[in-house]
Amino acid sequence: MIAILKNGTTPSQTEHLIQWLKNMNLDVHVSHGHEVTILGLVGDTSRVDMELLNSLEIVETVKRVSEPFKQANRKFHPQDTVIQVGDIKIGGGNFAVIAGPCSIETEEQIVSVAMAVKASGANILRGGAFKPRTSPYAFQGLKDAGIQLLLKAKEASGLPIITEIMNIRALELFENVDIIQVGARNMQNFDLLQELGKTKKPILLKRGLANTLQELLMSAEYIMSEGNENVILCERGIRSFETYTRNTLDLSAIPVLHELSHLPVIVDPSHATGKASLVPTMAAAAVAAGADGIMVEVHNNPACALCDGAQSLTPAQFDSLNAKLQKIREVIA
Amino acid sequence: MIAILKNGTTPSQTEHLIQWLKNMNLDVHVSHGHEVTILGLVGDTSRVDMELLNSLEIVETVKRVSEPFKQANRKFHPQDTVIQVGDIKIGGGNFAVIAGPCSIETEEQIVSVAMAVKASGANILRGGAFKPRTSPYAFQGLKDAGIQLLLKAKEASGLPIITEIMNIRALELFENVDIIQVGARNMQNFDLLQELGKTKKPILLKRGLANTLQELLMSAEYIMSEGNENVILCERGIRSFETYTRNTLDLSAIPVLHELSHLPVIVDPSHATGKASLVPTMAAAAVAAGADGIMVEVHNNPACALCDGAQSLTPAQFDSLNAKLQKIREVIA
Amino acid sequence: MIAILKNGTTPSQTEHLIQWLKNMNLDVHVSHGHEVTILGLVGDTSRVDMELLNSLEIVETVKRVSEPFKQANRKFHPQDTVIQVGDIKIGGGNFAVIAGPCSIETEEQIVSVAMAVKASGANILRGGAFKPRTSPYAFQGLKDAGIQLLLKAKEASGLPIITEIMNIRALELFENVDIIQVGARNMQNFDLLQELGKTKKPILLKRGLANTLQELLMSAEYIMSEGNENVILCERGIRSFETYTRNTLDLSAIPVLHELSHLPVIVDPSHATGKASLVPTMAAAAVAAGADGIMVEVHNNPACALCDGAQSLTPAQFDSLNAKLQKIREVIA
Amino acid sequence: MIAILKNGTTPSQTEHLIQWLKNMNLDVHVSHGHEVTILGLVGDTSRVDMELLNSLEIVETVKRVSEPFKQANRKFHPQDTVIQVGDIKIGGGNFAVIAGPCSIETEEQIVSVAMAVKASGANILRGGAFKPRTSPYAFQGLKDAGIQLLLKAKEASGLPIITEIMNIRALELFENVDIIQVGARNMQNFDLLQELGKTKKPILLKRGLANTLQELLMSAEYIMSEGNENVILCERGIRSFETYTRNTLDLSAIPVLHELSHLPVIVDPSHATGKASLVPTMAAAAVAAGADGIMVEVHNNPACALCDGAQSLTPAQFDSLNAKLQKIREVIA
Repeated sequence: MIAILKNGTTPSQTEHLIQWLKNMNLDVHVSHGHEVTILGLVGDTSRVDMELLNSLEIVETVKRVSEPFKQANRKFHPQDTVIQVGDIKIGGGNFAVIAGPCSIETEEQIVSVAMAVKASGANILRGGAFKPRTSPYAFQGLKDAGIQLLLKAKEASGLPIITEIMNIRALELFENVDIIQVGARNMQNFDLLQELGKTKKPILLKRGLANTLQELLMSAEYIMSEGNENVILCERGIRSFETYTRNTLDLSAIPVLHELSHLPVIVDPSHATGKASLVPTMAAAAVAAGADGIMVEVHNNPACALCDGAQSLTPAQFDSLNAKLQKIREVIA
Repeated sequence: MIAILKNGTTPSQTEHLIQWLKNMNLDVHVSHGHEVTILGLVGDTSRVDMELLNSLEIVETVKRVSEPFKQANRKFHPQDTVIQVGDIKIGGGNFAVIAGPCSIETEEQIVSVAMAVKASGANILRGGAFKPRTSPYAFQGLKDAGIQLLLKAKEASGLPIITEIMNIRALELFENVDIIQVGARNMQNFDLLQELGKTKKPILLKRGLANTLQELLMSAEYIMSEGNENVILCERGIRSFETYTRNTLDLSAIPVLHELSHLPVIVDPSHATGKASLVPTMAAAAVAAGADGIMVEVHNNPACALCDGAQSLTPAQFDSLNAKLQKIREVIA
Repeated sequence: MIAILKNGTTPSQTEHLIQWLKNMNLDVHVSHGHEVTILGLVGDTSRVDMELLNSLEIVETVKRVSEPFKQANRKFHPQDTVIQVGDIKIGGGNFAVIAGPCSIETEEQIVSVAMAVKASGANILRGGAFKPRTSPYAFQGLKDAGIQLLLKAKEASGLPIITEIMNIRALELFENVDIIQVGARNMQNFDLLQELGKTKKPILLKRGLANTLQELLMSAEYIMSEGNENVILCERGIRSFETYTRNTLDLSAIPVLHELSHLPVIVDPSHATGKASLVPTMAAAAVAAGADGIMVEVHNNPACALCDGAQSLTPAQFDSLNAKLQKIREVIA
Repeated sequence: MIAILKNGTTPSQTEHLIQWLKNMNLDVHVSHGHEVTILGLVGDTSRVDMELLNSLEIVETVKRVSEPFKQANRKFHPQDTVIQVGDIKIGGGNFAVIAGPCSIETEEQIVSVAMAVKASGANILRGGAFKPRTSPYAFQGLKDAGIQLLLKAKEASGLPIITEIMNIRALELFENVDIIQVGARNMQNFDLLQELGKTKKPILLKRGLANTLQELLMSAEYIMSEGNENVILCERGIRSFETYTRNTLDLSAIPVLHELSHLPVIVDPSHATGKASLVPTMAAAAVAAGADGIMVEVHNNPACALCDGAQSLTPAQFDSLNAKLQKIREVIA
């Protein structure tokens, strides 16, 4: 870490600051330049509060030379992490196709969607039991009962399952869930992350709506630093000024996260765009950008013509999408 | 709630949609216009998933006519809510001055700051015991021990206290805490909000870094819908593209929240700006904008010349600020 | 256009508003609903100031039912626009590969890059003569002399050329330029757009850093409404909170613009990411998302090892990228 | 300027970079640290392309130690700039009250508003003749004829006038205009700024919708570097995710711009909020934050009850606002 002191800082102020830093068990190398004094901090700088240091009146700027994430960092772990879920591998060239309905509604619904997406090439089943909703009056999911239905669909289809957790107190319900999802709004619910770090379950961590990629990696680090290295990163759209799509899918997140980290990166075009008509195109683009998998909403309600326009694909659309994605994977391999 | 259907929607599609809406116990009034068909939905529309409805292919747009928040809504509760904390009132013309250090460090520190800020006119003491930090390696606060020290400062000074909760499992530690703070990153931790709604404690709810004011009010509604009406809203800066300040303080939030809601609105200029030099000016502006209180960081470390530039005020600066705020309050009264 | 009036609007206020709207030559259809009154405005609503209407105290909300852009609108022009530049076609299944250096520096440089990119499959040459720079002290381009050098490269290579205009007074210099570029910072320089609308030149219009897609299409409409229908839209990254990339490339802009408009859509991954290492990946993703072309920076300076890390590709990297893009085009065709 | 090189940079790469920098007439001081090599660049670094330097593969980061703006910089010009317009002074403790209608409509309208706002304490008259509009079909202002009407109001009232320019070719129309306004969408229309820099007219420069304060100051620098030091900065709201207000007024811009620059800072709460009900509160807050003036919309159309809810104040509201602002100015003086 480098701290650049302002022109005009007195020797006694500089000395004060150096002592303060040394008290944090850091070595401090001082370099007096033409206009500025530069302090090079050596040691475990991950404990230094960069915002506090930066806000000191004598400090011009502070810059980390090494990234603050360690376990998620590709520098210290050059090989791709491969996460095993049942027979399925994610990352390191293995592609995950996660599909299923937004919400779990009935046994008939979740089982039939499971069978349909499996037939079309999905290798993991998704379905929401606990639903984070902006309004306390909106449907919050079937909760415990939803998990039970999802487990039945797992048994019927043989697909591993993923579903979202909102409260660590529900953890025991997730015993037979294969991947636990942390939603965008909980990306910086640090207590939840730490508790999930004490399990060995694969965690799919969604990027928050206005968070940077470094913040996403720091949240992954919260899980990993407790001992759980099975973290899957998920880009699901960021908030922007655009109103035509629900969020703005940031596909550059894929190559950037691959540069910075060894963790697999999944893309969710359904939530990002909010429009079924855009999902196949953006899924294709995600694969071309190197995604390690996609997560898409598929419903199975031929009676409900209304739903066709929403963000979910029909099984037929999903089937045709998968064939296309496979071809793109071959081209970019 | 109004749903406008696209030009070209068939009668059978319209009928499908109307049946679906009626199944949600809504009355549907249909109006066929020149270019469009408009559905007026009457009944408890707070349960309608607006995003889903909006994403249907035949729907041009959906618009709530009534706000989705009820208990926080000034329309149904025209008078200002006044929250009582010990002898202190917040809201309805009563001004709260909340001051104290960012983190609780030692008994000597928190007690002496408490005495200092009380002498300068603070009526509530703040201090962080559980600290949400982007990095798992950064100092996370003294936690349980910090709460104990804060309680000693409460006893010594007679000031009511406020501190942040990050996990509902810590709730029993907060028994003698007067106001529980929910931080910006937990504004949409809906499970935490619901649990706090089951208590009777005043809750200070901070706006998330990229959240709208309606989202803030919906989060307040989560607390209120469980039975706890003692919610204080707090503007603490939003994320913007500006880098000179840590966040961008949105002071228009004050009159807007006052138009929309009866809940008191507090402003935290310390976290918003991240620079002590800007705190007094922005606190003054907040008061001129009608804030029901301010929350500022004050430290008490005359030996540490370094800290003077950070976001905390010295007791002397705080003292002089308070005198100025009082005068502005008189002018705008 | 639909205007929804607030509950509580008096009949006389409603009548006032209707008269005001009729004075704008609009027919007004009134529908009294349960909670609200809805006005349907029929006629040329593109002249109605939506923001003003929306800000009236009695108006709950205003919603356009038809998009405010007409000539750029796919509804009124279902077939893809194909823009002809010399022998090259852009749009409607024809793919443009625009390449060249960021700035034109010397005759030797621009001619040799032109020959190199042509050999690798580029069909249009780019190069900056007028450079918009945040600082008045930074290099602003070779200006007039730069255009002359670019014309020499056009002659030598036979490639059509594109370069940016910053001031309509320079228009005569662009007589032999094939495509005129309007930069992101000038996307809402409406006077410049109108003047370019009076020419017949193809215009490549870049999206502004914080502009919505509708705003981009309205700016295209400024050009088209003056008689010039040869507009090419260009996504070049939007401002976001992410700092690792220079901007955030919004690839969902491609399918959305294709839904809304018949105009071709080009993607510039070089400016968007600011990092050569990300350009090939994001170019591939853009093609998978259906882009009608890409615009990439290529330099030709084997002596300058330094530049390899910047946002420009080497000719060899560009060559290999083109081969990959071709394969993706075949897969998604 | 400091450039920090990545760990692993070879001596020959470092040498290459140093030579490249020396070719730009910079002295380069090299400091080899524990993990990194730091280059201190001395000389006229305002010409260095920071983005290019930053994008080089061997460069970890680049940091300006001195701000890139010089003439607008308070460091080199500690005293507040005071701009004289007729008898009126702006800045350095002199407060400007700029008021008038959004658009100039008729002679009767602009003259009567001028007389009304003068009577209520305005010292400068505003009115739009050239109106930047998102849509080419919307009313673009009376243009030349509007300027003529504004000049009549100037003569009738004796107030100096301000109006917006959109195209440098209209400059001669502005001969008797006292302050020329550059709108938010033209803040980075660098050619326009340079041409205005060749005049001696006071220029009111509005901050762009998504621009940082440093970018605003760099645009001021464009004007000043051509010889015109009479620049007034104007905060008018930034784009945010909030939808209740038209834009989000960033009042922290006032103390920040005052720290960084000696130029006066004006606030426009009418355009920022888009709601008359919020204008007085935000104007009061702007004054408390130290603004050197405000610019508010005032209409004079007692017959048009409709307009009362829009962003314009009535003369009576404006009158009462002015009295309050005066009191706040006394308190914070």
